[in-house]
Order: sequence, then C-alpha cells, then structure tokens
Amino acid sequence: MKLIVQKYGGTSVKDTERIKAVARRVVERAAEGNKVIVVVSAMAGETDKFIKFANEITSRPDEREMDMLLSSGERVTSALMAMAIQALGRKAISFTGRQVGIFTDSSHTKALIDHIEAGRLKSALGHDKIPVVAGFQGINEYSDVTTLGRGGSDTTAVAIAAALKADLCEIYTDVDGVYTTDPRIVPEARKMTRISYDEMLEMASLGAKVLHGRSVEFAKKFNVPLVVRSSYNDSPGTLVTKEDGEMEKVVVTGVAQDKNQARITIMGMPDRPGIAASLFNKIAAANVNVDMIVQNISHDDQATDISFTVSKTDGDKAFEIAQQVSDKLGTSGVNMNPDVAKVSIIGVGMQSHFGVAATMFETLSQAGINIMMISTSEIKISCVVAASQSEQAVRELHTVFELAKE
Amino acid sequence: MKLIVQKYGGTSVKDTERIKAVARRVVERAAEGNKVIVVVSAMAGETDKFIKFANEITSRPDEREMDMLLSSGERVTSALMAMAIQALGRKAISFTGRQVGIFTDSSHTKALIDHIEAGRLKSALGHDKIPVVAGFQGINEYSDVTTLGRGGSDTTAVAIAAALKADLCEIYTDVDGVYTTDPRIVPEARKMTRISYDEMLEMASLGAKVLHGRSVEFAKKFNVPLVVRSSYNDSPGTLVTKEDGEMEKVVVTGVAQDKNQARITIMGMPDRPGIAASLFNKIAAANVNVDMIVQNISHDDQATDISFTVSKTDGDKAFEIAQQVSDKLGTSGVNMNPDVAKVSIIGVGMQSHFGVAATMFETLSQAGINIMMISTSEIKISCVVAASQSEQAVRELHTVFELAKE
Repeated sequence: MKLIVQKYGGTSVKDTERIKAVARRVVERAAEGNKVIVVVSAMAGETDKFIKFANEITSRPDEREMDMLLSSGERVTSALMAMAIQALGRKAISFTGRQVGIFTDSSHTKALIDHIEAGRLKSALGHDKIPVVAGFQGINEYSDVTTLGRGGSDTTAVAIAAALKADLCEIYTDVDGVYTTDPRIVPEARKMTRISYDEMLEMASLGAKVLHGRSVEFAKKFNVPLVVRSSYNDSPGTLVTKEDGEMEKVVVTGVAQDKNQARITIMGMPDRPGIAASLFNKIAAANVNVDMIVQNISHDDQATDISFTVSKTDGDKAFEIAQQVSDKLGTSGVNMNPDVAKVSIIGVGMQSHFGVAATMFETLSQAGINIMMISTSEIKISCVVAASQSEQAVRELHTVFELAKE
Repeated sequence: MKLIVQKYGGTSVKDTERIKAVARRVVERAAEGNKVIVVVSAMAGETDKFIKFANEITSRPDEREMDMLLSSGERVTSALMAMAIQALGRKAISFTGRQVGIFTDSSHTKALIDHIEAGRLKSALGHDKIPVVAGFQGINEYSDVTTLGRGGSDTTAVAIAAALKADLCEIYTDVDGVYTTDPRIVPEARKMTRISYDEMLEMASLGAKVLHGRSVEFAKKFNVPLVVRSSYNDSPGTLVTKEDGEMEKVVVTGVAQDKNQARITIMGMPDRPGIAASLFNKIAAANVNVDMIVQNISHDDQATDISFTVSKTDGDKAFEIAQQVSDKLGTSGVNMNPDVAKVSIIGVGMQSHFGVAATMFETLSQAGINIMMISTSEIKISCVVAASQSEQAVRELHTVFELAKE
C-alpha cells in the first residue's frame, strides 16, 4: 500500500463538473489499494475575484486581511471535493490548513511553513477517510490565517508528503507534464519523462509556470518524488526527482523564457566600494527583487556602468530609486528598457560539458539576436535579449540543442 | 463611551461599494466616541451560490462539509470590511468565529452557541481596533467549523453583545425597521418605534423575516437592547426591548402571514392514548418541524380527526409518514392541502383584553374567508386559511385593529 498526495490546481477544479471528475480519479487511485491525501486550490478565477474586490476597496490592502480573504477559496473547494468523494461512496473529510496543523511564520501573503503536526491527517487515514486539504494556507503563532504565496498549494502538497513520508506527490494541472520549452512557441517541444529537482527549480524560476519554485525546493530538501501530470487525461506526466548519471549525459534539458523583465542601467557610476551595495539595499528595502546584475569593468578606474533586471511591474519603482541614487552620486545618467526578455537554457549535464555557452552565444549571434546581459550558474545560462526576438531565440536554441529528440 | 455591536446583513454588504458605505457608517459611529464591534454576513447571493454548488455535486451533502463551505462567505466579507475601515484611517481587524472564541455544540448547519470567550475581541477593543467578526459561525469541541443556521449572523451579533455586556446591538438590514405588517401587502403598514421581545419572537416565527428568531430569544434572555434599522438611510429603526406598561395598552401590535405551510389531516384515527405521540415522534425523527396541531373531539369516542401543519418543503415527507401510520392503524384516510397560509395577529396587550379572538374570527368571516385551523398563545392568535385569501385576511385585520394609526 502506497501513500500518495495528490494536488489539484484551479483549472482542475474550476466547476462542479471538474470537481466530480477529479473525485472519480481520487477514488480510483484509492481503489487500487493506495492511501490518498488530496490537496486543492481555489476554483479558477476565485482568487482573482478576491484580489479585484480588495483593489476596489483600497490600493494598499492589509496583508493579514488579504490572507483572511484569499484563504477562503481553497476552503470552498475542499468542502465540495469532500462531498464529491462521499457521493461516490468513499469516506472523506475536508481540512483547513489550521486543522491539519500547518504552522507558518507571520509573513502574511508569503508565509514560510515552519512545521506540520498532521495529527488529524493520520487519524483520518487510520479511519479509512480520504482527507481533502485546503491548500495555500496555514496559521501563525497567533492563530491568524497565513497564505504561502501564489501557487502555494503545490508547497502544501509537497510539505504534507514530506511530513508523512509519502511515496509520491502528484501535482495535477492543465498541462500533461514539463516540456523542453513552451509548446506554444516551439510546436515540436517534447514532454520530458524525468527532470532533476535542480533543473526544475531553474525552469520554474526562469518562467516555466508549471510548478511553484518553493515546492520544488521542499521536494528536493526532503527527497519527495514529484510527478507533474494532467487531470484531464491519463498521460503519465513528468517525474521530478534526484539527478542520476543518466540525466547528466544530456547537456541541455530545456529552454525557458521570461518576458516579465525590465532592464535598468546606471551609466558612469563612481567605482568605489560600497556604492553597489547601497543601491541594491535601497531597492530591496522597497520590496523589489533584483534578478540579474551585470557590472562592466571601469572605463578609467573611476566610473562604471551597472545594469540590472527587475520584473516589469517593479520597473518604475526601481527606476525611481536608481535615479535618486544617481542624482546623489553624480553619474552620467539612468535609463530603463522595459522591452527585454530573459532566455535561458537549463541542464545538469552542462556542468561536465564544455562549450555550451559558446554554442548558445554563437547561435543567437548567427540569428542576428543581440545579447544585452549574460548570467550563468552551474546548470543554466541566461541571456537578456530584446523582447521582440525572444521567441525566435527560444526556437533557435531548442533546435541547436536537439531538444525535440528523445 | 458606549459599546455598540453592529450587524450588517447580506444586502448591506452585497458589493464593494456597499461595503465602503457601511465602513463609513461604522467609522462615524466610532468617531462619536463609541467602541464598535462589527458582525457581517456573506455578500448577498454567495450563500445561495455555495448551496447550488453543493446540490450540483450531491443530493445529500454532508452537514460538516456544508458548514466548511458556507462559513467561507462571511470570512470574505469580514476581511473586505476590515480593509474598508482601515482605508478610512481607523484600525480594524477581521476575526473568524473561531478567533473570537464562539464555541458551539456539534449540530452542524444549526449549531447552538455554548459560550463565547471573546479574549481577542476585548484585546482588539483595548488597542482601539474595530473588530470585524465573520457572523453565522463558530467551532465545536473538535475544532471543526459549525454554522448557526440561516440568519445566524443576527445571533452572532446578539451573543457577542450579551457576552461583552454591550449597550446596544444594531441589526442593519435593507428595511428600515419592523412594520405592523408587510408593506407590500398593506401599503399603509406603519413602522413601529418599539416592540417587545415576545412580540418580535412571534413576528419572527410567524413569517416576518426581519430578525432571526433565535437572536431575539438570546436578546430577551440576556436583556440586550436590539435595534433593527436600514443601512441605506438614517431612519432610527425599531427598538426591540423589554415590555413595559405603555406597550400593554396596545392590543394588537402586528399582523403576519406565512405562506410556507402545508396542512395534513388524518381522518378517523383511533382515539387511544399514545397514538398522537407515536405519529409526531416519527415525524420529528425525520427532522420535520410540526407547527400547528389541532385534534377535534371524537365522533363516537373511538375515532378522531387530527390535522397539523408543516412547512411546505417538508409536506411530502410528512405526508408519507402520516400515510404509513395511517396504514398501520387503519384510519379513514389521509389528505394534504399544500395551498394554505397562516395569518396571525400579535400583541402583548391581548393578555389583558377580551374579545380579540372574536374580533379576528368575525372579521375573517365577514370577508368570506374560511378558517381551517386555529391556534392561540398568550400574545398571538393564528388562523390557517386558503393561501389565495391570506393577503386579503392580512389587510382586513390590519384595518380592523387600526394598526396604521400611531
């Protein structure tokens, strides 16, 4: 008998017909002799509706209140799903994050899980009930509701799987696995059978929306085997797991793009120790995440150009701060380019293969695509290019690294 | 400084514009130097939407799951209302039923409040925060969410007012008080300035939908002054309070009708002790509430006719049980009339005035309205009449008892 945690996203439970279809899938899995725990998201559109309400009321909603508001959607789905499973003749019981003992810190709207008590989960399983857990939420030490950030239901599922040492955590979504790149851009993109945690992490952080990054970190940390698959068909999906020798033979696993990028450059900035730190501290204090940072060597040992990227929505805020810093220091000026995109190649095999970066740069160059910024890690290389050229870049890279081939 | 509990119903918070309007009213009340606690219902339509979802999934939704589902609507409103109050520059904090310590029994979907701890409420008031409580809900001893039945937010408000010994409990709705009868039937119906708890109880149980009956019982028990008023205007509303000498001078205070009635008659039922008890025990076991019961004297000391009314929705269920009992005992037959209505007059003054019943019966008779069943209490007289004649009956009684006059 296996213990399986299944998580169903918003489109998988978007209406009562879908909820009934998912319930049938859950019951089938249980009938095969498995213990099943279900984690559900809010019905598609509900969370956006709540955010719209909040924005109609105030431009700066309090984060504690946002969590009270947003956590309601998952509760609704959990109750409806428990009813749907019961209607098929199996015992089921819905639980809130609090009821299964998901304790988090107090960072409202982006809380981190501290520990899971899971007493009621174990007891329900012991009584042959299928627990249906409202995802995305927990409580803090004051017994206030917290949420885990957008996509947090993935993290709920993985954390429960880790706490109960589940054999498998299945993430059901509206795509049938992880692809070598976005099939809407490259029709010959191939669904991967397996991918390593690290590669999946990079894919997620680089714009592939199939899994919440934090859930992958959690899965890696506790070694929870994850499967990404579709709730609309029986395709086996993609297994996210520890890397093995087999994986390292493949140099590049996938290509990702992220169009939600803006590049800001401060030109002729005094090249003294501490200057960059002071700039990025100010930006961090404004709650803006900086993604790539590139500092060129000084022109004359006195001034340098520094470029960085932020998400497009944070562009204006970051630009304003850069301008203030620039005014104070006396630079040659600040500019922002909101029409950029980040194109990345990912693969654990890169670590042991030479020339991957060179192939990437040459491919882009031959296609007439100018590279504005470069950033590398052990298992990924990212280039910032003009937004208008990013899809072409994805296609060229998908071809040159032969990703359509098994 | 007064402590005031304000409850806002579904139509008062039906969209974000209304929520903002209510927030202004709350803040004004607080600015007058009062401590204010707000209790909110779900936005109008939300609860019905949840019930529709549940019915799409199963014809017999589990009651624990119904409570998990239904309690979500009030949470949403409480968070939005707290945000709206904060946007006006006052401190506010939303609370679930659990967070303010509303402990109930485990009768899911119709739980009774056991006690209220209110620690967080007091602490919030002490920090000059306006608490916004999600109405209609509590938790049981297992920490599962329970709900107090339709209209239960009124009860939440009164129970909190009682627990904190509030000076006043204001129930905001979409009508501006309690009327002598339904103004849609009798245009000259008059809004009452005051009404006693007992009269209000009868009005509520007899079909006046302005207040939840249980909340009035609670208010009476703990002597909480209640005001029913509109959130759409500044009309002072109707005060529900202890009866006093002034009230007893008025013979009849109001006229109510309830069209949600079905009458069932078992004819020629053996007139032996215990027969009626066995019938009504069986009906109660099916969770059907019986309203009026009339048993005529025996025809020949051996058999009798027994009639009773139930709500129209329970008619078929009750009829089936009556038929089973009838088959077992051997009677002359069972019939059901679903086209009946109950018309009632209410007034504490009745207790000390003669001839009120006679006036009622004569008035109906002169109007050609046949009385099918009669039931009386100290402060009300109810008659079952044909549904098609009930509105006429209300008009005739409103006139004869001169209710339009101040």
